[in-house]
Amino acid sequence: MAEGGNPRHRVVIVGGGFGGLLTALGLRKPPCDVTLIDRRNFHLFQPLLYQVATGALSPANIAAPLRSVLRRQKNTRVLLGEVGGFDLTGKLVLLADGDQIPFDTLVLAAGSTHAYFGHDDWAVFAPGLKTVEDATEIRRRVLSAFERAERERDPDARQRLLTFVVVGGGPTGVEMAGAISELARQTLRFDFRAFDPACSRIVIVEGQGRVLGTFHEKLSQKAKEALERMGVEVQLDSHVTDVGPDYVLIKPNGGKAPPVRIETETVVWAAGVKASGLGKLIAGAVGGVETDRVGRVVVNRDCTVGNRSDVFVIGDLANFKGGDGKQLPGLAPVAMQQGKYVADLIARRLKGDPADPGPFKYWDKGSMATIGRGRAVAETGGLKLSGYLAWLAWLFIHILYLAQFENRVLVMWQWFFNYVTRNRAALLITGEGAYRPRDPHRVVPSGESVVKG
Amino acid sequence: MAEGGNPRHRVVIVGGGFGGLLTALGLRKPPCDVTLIDRRNFHLFQPLLYQVATGALSPANIAAPLRSVLRRQKNTRVLLGEVGGFDLTGKLVLLADGDQIPFDTLVLAAGSTHAYFGHDDWAVFAPGLKTVEDATEIRRRVLSAFERAERERDPDARQRLLTFVVVGGGPTGVEMAGAISELARQTLRFDFRAFDPACSRIVIVEGQGRVLGTFHEKLSQKAKEALERMGVEVQLDSHVTDVGPDYVLIKPNGGKAPPVRIETETVVWAAGVKASGLGKLIAGAVGGVETDRVGRVVVNRDCTVGNRSDVFVIGDLANFKGGDGKQLPGLAPVAMQQGKYVADLIARRLKGDPADPGPFKYWDKGSMATIGRGRAVAETGGLKLSGYLAWLAWLFIHILYLAQFENRVLVMWQWFFNYVTRNRAALLITGEGAYRPRDPHRVVPSGESVVKG
Repeated sequence: MAEGGNPRHRVVIVGGGFGGLLTALGLRKPPCDVTLIDRRNFHLFQPLLYQVATGALSPANIAAPLRSVLRRQKNTRVLLGEVGGFDLTGKLVLLADGDQIPFDTLVLAAGSTHAYFGHDDWAVFAPGLKTVEDATEIRRRVLSAFERAERERDPDARQRLLTFVVVGGGPTGVEMAGAISELARQTLRFDFRAFDPACSRIVIVEGQGRVLGTFHEKLSQKAKEALERMGVEVQLDSHVTDVGPDYVLIKPNGGKAPPVRIETETVVWAAGVKASGLGKLIAGAVGGVETDRVGRVVVNRDCTVGNRSDVFVIGDLANFKGGDGKQLPGLAPVAMQQGKYVADLIARRLKGDPADPGPFKYWDKGSMATIGRGRAVAETGGLKLSGYLAWLAWLFIHILYLAQFENRVLVMWQWFFNYVTRNRAALLITGEGAYRPRDPHRVVPSGESVVKG
Repeated sequence: MAEGGNPRHRVVIVGGGFGGLLTALGLRKPPCDVTLIDRRNFHLFQPLLYQVATGALSPANIAAPLRSVLRRQKNTRVLLGEVGGFDLTGKLVLLADGDQIPFDTLVLAAGSTHAYFGHDDWAVFAPGLKTVEDATEIRRRVLSAFERAERERDPDARQRLLTFVVVGGGPTGVEMAGAISELARQTLRFDFRAFDPACSRIVIVEGQGRVLGTFHEKLSQKAKEALERMGVEVQLDSHVTDVGPDYVLIKPNGGKAPPVRIETETVVWAAGVKASGLGKLIAGAVGGVETDRVGRVVVNRDCTVGNRSDVFVIGDLANFKGGDGKQLPGLAPVAMQQGKYVADLIARRLKGDPADPGPFKYWDKGSMATIGRGRAVAETGGLKLSGYLAWLAWLFIHILYLAQFENRVLVMWQWFFNYVTRNRAALLITGEGAYRPRDPHRVVPSGESVVKG
């Protein structure tokens, strides 16, 4: 670990998402020892998680084992572990199991998870979409609902099973609703005998006046129209007031219309995020540092925290205000660019480069959201695209990104294959509770072993 | 459901494995209504489950959703449900949730699961390999062991983590041990910084005097040599007397040598099977029908049970004695041929064909087992093959089988891709407990929800 007698500079990165992984990759050449800590052994391409949730792709298609990605990068080690705290005086990352990892520079990129804004009791009825387990759980619920509908004789109960509610009309919500619609109307078209899957009802509930609120209004309108052509009901200005095992209560029209009860047993939560709890921990450890409403750390213009030039927070965990005072969105490109920026900054310091690289600047290449096969919206600079062309752009950019990792050929192939054949190989109901199709909201009972066959 | 006023003959098949699925496919044309009941929504190609357990394939690569396979077969419906019993007087299959499915002919193909022969307490330490969940659980344990070794500073504890014990030297045990060896020595070769994965110890514990006991002795010897060249220790004539969280106790040499304690935290059970509990239920319902030591139903020469010409039991659940009085092995080809035979028999009856088709005859095309990339043994008739040629034959036959299903192209491609690149995309640690790498044998605690993010 030593070079020329001097101990090498130790960089510890917490989190193997877009931000953390790009930081690690950017530190390949500088003379430092890098430790990447994550709770999971893989990097997950979250933007395609909804494709796992609807059975189009397998988890392995959108995940890259961190060790595989970094295996030739000799100055970098990967540790599987859960971070429990920080000792900034001793310059230590404290793991939940008691281990301590010393650092000279710390990069915190622990991301975010979904949030229920004070209604955590809804989580059991309305899972979010952040992890592989979330995705396979949603896949299990959606497919089980169709299975149960096939056995249900009561028409009302069957229609309740065939009703799917997506809470939130951002990119994830729009993608989920579109994918469920395609599943019902196309993939499963010939699969049932007791009902026509095309009779499924798919509802998006969005609190604001339009879907894809961060996009231009024109594109929001295009997306809404595309969804409606696919048979998705779009409920705007509508707030969810309660979620139960077989219903969602909403207040439509900003509360001016009377409350509506939607009978459903399958709800997907795509409405809100909160930052990892490590944000509050690091803010407290540094002292005098704010966190925002959802727990993000307010960072300096070079992504450092407070007066600590050796502590960086990036990605979804950071509240970064650009030159215009506007906060950057929680998007993969922001995290990736921050990761590259921080790696570059550390490399300059190690070289003793006196030139100030200046504050981090986000280069907004545009944003895009897909609604279904051949349907997407995209905007870049003043350019707005919708429809097939936008979808091709979306496809191209996502494949390009995945191409950085090892399973690139497979994903491309699988995607192409799915596109041509409407393949359904990943429509598996697996995991805890998979044996009990009639009870999808079951909680694992006391003492039940995970190896139970 | 009616044709010319007569109600159509109702065939109910329980189980969507090799036997049940082939029965259903064989009843495509005869004038009957077929109901296939399974607890899972997919057919699983179990012979390749060990490739999921070692991260080479994803579950979706070796599973075919039953609805997809049967979606164009209009006379057939698939029901997801768990069978709880039979009312043979009323001719009803009773589902665990209270539903009743009437039948005119019943085909029971509910298969087998792994068995611990009176030591069910070992299950938590030594999972078997029968379901997708088993496979991902074993994958999680094997990969977590390497992850924990990377963080372990005590050399003894690290060696214990790098020791893998496979109990049972049949085809599954040999395949598992070979695949773990390849994982350690090849796939993960460059992935760790604190140890060399090639130092892993992999042990097969087999009670008999040779591995692959159902093969010719020459091939058993070849297989043992191939395993040893791959660094696998083969302990013959050795019985497991205890399994704990961090050890396996064995009595080597038929009990003549003193007991040996192997320090390990990762044990895979490939030693025994027991038939589905539905075997005993149907035997009791028919009356006067024997079940054997592992719960298989002793069936007549036409696969019917007792005096009931309308009740068939096939596949792993059946104890079928051929003309030579020898019991047929629990292999996929037996189940498949029985499924075809029963479908044909039912079709003849429906046609009123008086010709007696004669008893079921198993056409033994031979057997094969793979040990690793380019290493296998095979025998067919008097011909014995080993090494690369046997492996090519194994590959060819397995791809040919998978080619019956929809995901054929993908599996072939993925396999080829893995072969060429030694890809490792499916090396994911997922599922319950995946966040807690230091505690792989953890039991899900009381009240913990399956949607916990």
